[in-house]
Amino acid sequence: MQGVTTAPLPITGIRWGSTSAGVRLDRDDLAVMAIAEGSTCAAVFTRNRFPAAPVTLAREHLALTAPRFLLVNSGNANAGTGAPGMRDALATCRALALHGGCATEAVLPFSTGIIGEPLPVSRITEALPRALEALADDDWMAAARAIMTTDTVPKTSAVTVSIGGTPVTVTGIAKGAGMIAPDMATLLAFVATDAAVSRPLLDACLQHAVAQSFNRITVDGDTSTNDACVLVATARAPAQPITEPAGEAYQAFSSAVTEVCRTLARAIIRDGEGATKFVAIEVGGCPSEGAALQIARAVANSPLVKTALFASDPNWGRILAAVGRAVSPDIDAERLTIRLNGMCVFRDGARAAGLIEEDARAAMTFPDIVIAIDLGSGRHAATVWTCDLSYDYVRINAEYHS
Amino acid sequence: MQGVTTAPLPITGIRWGSTSAGVRLDRDDLAVMAIAEGSTCAAVFTRNRFPAAPVTLAREHLALTAPRFLLVNSGNANAGTGAPGMRDALATCRALALHGGCATEAVLPFSTGIIGEPLPVSRITEALPRALEALADDDWMAAARAIMTTDTVPKTSAVTVSIGGTPVTVTGIAKGAGMIAPDMATLLAFVATDAAVSRPLLDACLQHAVAQSFNRITVDGDTSTNDACVLVATARAPAQPITEPAGEAYQAFSSAVTEVCRTLARAIIRDGEGATKFVAIEVGGCPSEGAALQIARAVANSPLVKTALFASDPNWGRILAAVGRAVSPDIDAERLTIRLNGMCVFRDGARAAGLIEEDARAAMTFPDIVIAIDLGSGRHAATVWTCDLSYDYVRINAEYHS
Repeated sequence: MQGVTTAPLPITGIRWGSTSAGVRLDRDDLAVMAIAEGSTCAAVFTRNRFPAAPVTLAREHLALTAPRFLLVNSGNANAGTGAPGMRDALATCRALALHGGCATEAVLPFSTGIIGEPLPVSRITEALPRALEALADDDWMAAARAIMTTDTVPKTSAVTVSIGGTPVTVTGIAKGAGMIAPDMATLLAFVATDAAVSRPLLDACLQHAVAQSFNRITVDGDTSTNDACVLVATARAPAQPITEPAGEAYQAFSSAVTEVCRTLARAIIRDGEGATKFVAIEVGGCPSEGAALQIARAVANSPLVKTALFASDPNWGRILAAVGRAVSPDIDAERLTIRLNGMCVFRDGARAAGLIEEDARAAMTFPDIVIAIDLGSGRHAATVWTCDLSYDYVRINAEYHS
Repeated sequence: MQGVTTAPLPITGIRWGSTSAGVRLDRDDLAVMAIAEGSTCAAVFTRNRFPAAPVTLAREHLALTAPRFLLVNSGNANAGTGAPGMRDALATCRALALHGGCATEAVLPFSTGIIGEPLPVSRITEALPRALEALADDDWMAAARAIMTTDTVPKTSAVTVSIGGTPVTVTGIAKGAGMIAPDMATLLAFVATDAAVSRPLLDACLQHAVAQSFNRITVDGDTSTNDACVLVATARAPAQPITEPAGEAYQAFSSAVTEVCRTLARAIIRDGEGATKFVAIEVGGCPSEGAALQIARAVANSPLVKTALFASDPNWGRILAAVGRAVSPDIDAERLTIRLNGMCVFRDGARAAGLIEEDARAAMTFPDIVIAIDLGSGRHAATVWTCDLSYDYVRINAEYHS
């Protein structure tokens, strides 16, 4: 990998234009991505059984043709809106297609924000010309801002990587309003590259990247009514097309996309609602990766572990209890170890011999916490990222009607 | 059923004695139940893979002989304490057996409180004579107080029921420090009856009662390192022994035990850590009871739903999102309805026609909330009880090192 940055880098063939449609009052809430002809596009969508109207429509449109525009609004999720919601989503796509000179199905719609309110269609369609006028190569940061809801900072990431000696770039933006719970997940991510990648490889690459990033910050891979992640490849870099799944070029490209998604996923956790700690749950010594993930998620989602983290409390008892309800019956507590920021707190079935409580407390005062759990029962491992559960989490979610 | 009460009723053949062993400083923390000879006893224990020492020992002892004493301490869970913890639990059983004149294995130990600290054995053994001196028929309430940890009120329940024309009584006490999360579940419950019930029937009766009560206030039936529920039948009532699983007497008795456990389970939720709302999630119209339970638990454990409840916010979008990640793929959002305290808020795939936001808000201001979800896809139903997620939940669990 040649370079990783959290600052976005322009992608030839991609332009963003952002503006205010007045759905939110405090900042831009509409972003349009214009995609050069000949690009390929992959997407993954929420597995929620009641997807929002734009999710259903984006899925349908993507199956019909290669997209030329992404249309993203924040402030209104157009979810739980029934048949009128589908008509509204389609109306905004039609309006953009008319202005942009493409087929309606070449527009993919995305919405995030409040659930159950009618989409303010006319405000969006009236704002579209302004968004199109604003289209620019280097407007990733403005788009990252326009798609925010309860996010406090925009999330961007970029990686440059060499494909057969030629540099290609992968840039992404994301929004996520907490992710402290599996059903939160009002997550949108848009990633693009100037590499040339066939559609099947682009699909595989995105699946892998999401599994290793955004799905490592949720409980169970389930997601909200509006979640979506899109990967566009414009083929505008002079590098050779990537077509071989076993080849070195694909591996390098796939790693770059995964890295961009991981950086965005971690940025979402850092900006988690009310978060005061960034916590990595590293589970090792497991008989399978699935077992490690299950344990990591059980610990990451335990309200008792999360409140202890908020209190900077080295409370390995709550971690032990969470592990104990997630592991398979054949695991022996005697082989389990728990480390908090490197300090062993649990070993040989009990509090680690010689552990000094004050040292453990001191280790927990840092804003970044690593909870390392080793089962001593295999070679597989998995990491899940999470944050603590604070007063502010309750405040934000009790005050914000989403 | 002849009578249901939250006040405990004495059970002939059962005596409780409570005292202070000085593990907690603020109140009694040791309770002993003396069980008359010839009683039968059933118990269910935590399914956590790392059970506390007293759970392991109580399981072993119960397999060997009919118990004559239950020994319960609060303030220290004797969990995550390894081999020394097992020796400590055994030492307290031996001491009580010596005083009580029975075999060591006729004592079942139970502990609740802080995890990972050594059990203060000598404080407990020194207090045992005082607990035995205090033994009395009518000391259920004092025992209910002695087993409390972060509970703010003691939980008791009693039912009298006619068995072949003769009244028998079922009385129970429980402690539970929140149950707002599945891994919380530091739950102990002790139930006794003067009915005569064979051990196999007593086992079946307890399994059923727990499935319908305590396991309806957890996420997934998994429980903490120390959970236990015990049912003792002293056979001291003049009623005929209950031996036929298909008979009317067993059905009446089983209903009484389930009712006592349900009352205790609901009392635990009402005293949930930081709880300001008592919430029943009633899911109906499902293809199976399992499906209904899965949906009810997903809603009950959603931090977003819980914070909305705290805010008295009629936020059906969050309920919809939680249902949508729990239901099977063949469920149609068009057939789903959501009611909040009787008011329909979601129907025909969208906000219920004519819903007035102010009315919905008003319905949510009550301390008791019923969230009724109908899938319109079958005849099965299930209810789960939960509470809201408040600032005080975070405060209690950030301050209390359990």
